[in-house]
Amino acid sequence: MDYQYLEDFHPGQMYESTPVTVTEAEIIEFAIKYDPQPMHVDPVAAQTITGGLIASGWHTAALTMNRFITAGFYNPAPGALGLGCESLKWPKPVRPGDQLRLRLEVLTVRPSATRPDRGVITNRFTTLNQHNETVQEMITSVMISRRKA
Amino acid sequence: MDYQYLEDFHPGQMYESTPVTVTEAEIIEFAIKYDPQPMHVDPVAAQTITGGLIASGWHTAALTMNRFITAGFYNPAPGALGLGCESLKWPKPVRPGDQLRLRLEVLTVRPSATRPDRGVITNRFTTLNQHNETVQEMITSVMISRRKA
Repeated sequence: MDYQYLEDFHPGQMYESTPVTVTEAEIIEFAIKYDPQPMHVDPVAAQTITGGLIASGWHTAALTMNRFITAGFYNPAPGALGLGCESLKWPKPVRPGDQLRLRLEVLTVRPSATRPDRGVITNRFTTLNQHNETVQEMITSVMISRRKA
Repeated sequence: MDYQYLEDFHPGQMYESTPVTVTEAEIIEFAIKYDPQPMHVDPVAAQTITGGLIASGWHTAALTMNRFITAGFYNPAPGALGLGCESLKWPKPVRPGDQLRLRLEVLTVRPSATRPDRGVITNRFTTLNQHNETVQEMITSVMISRRKA
């Protein structure tokens, strides 16, 4: 796949990834390192707190990034860099065995006012489970290189 | 440490964690799983792209969560749950050897209008490196149980 430049992105473009299955072992492994709360690391304690183990929201975010980078529809020229999110929500929990896929919609494409070699795209990243429920939604900004004239 | 309830949080409360050191091995291990872009997984390629390896922003977010949960100043009653972020920015890169600490400020504390047993606090999480540069800033919302009357 050729490198993508700012000129290759357009508002309304949509992509959808294949799913990845979340395992109980991975939920616990991630959370022990980064988010060791009982509902993420202890299946017995989680039973009374959240009706069973749920993934850290940061794990869901990381798995969403995995879908984005490895799905095959994103291959920006070197220099592309995530700048952050305008919003990030976890409306439903992620549980062991869930199959998560990413739906991406390009919202805006804007050349930089001060740097002629780059611009910023904003995207809506929706992470869906196997029941088509939204488990994460975020609006992201990514800096992308422009094609040389 | 006793459980914390909504009544224990007040706007203006500030906490700061001890630092955690980020290693090159951990940057690469995280990024291979979740964000396999050259500047996160390939020290040689990263040299020309970002002047050396930089951590995935999602790794910085996860390490920030680690500081929050393990610092000893946050011990909410069961039922507390992160709802998401209003904003999340990565103004500076994180590099191998950096020492990251979390500075937390409680911004608002609001009982739920519809559920008398809970409420929502918003916080500013600032992740600082050893040079006191901000490498991540986010505004988060967390649901917290109220103390029983």
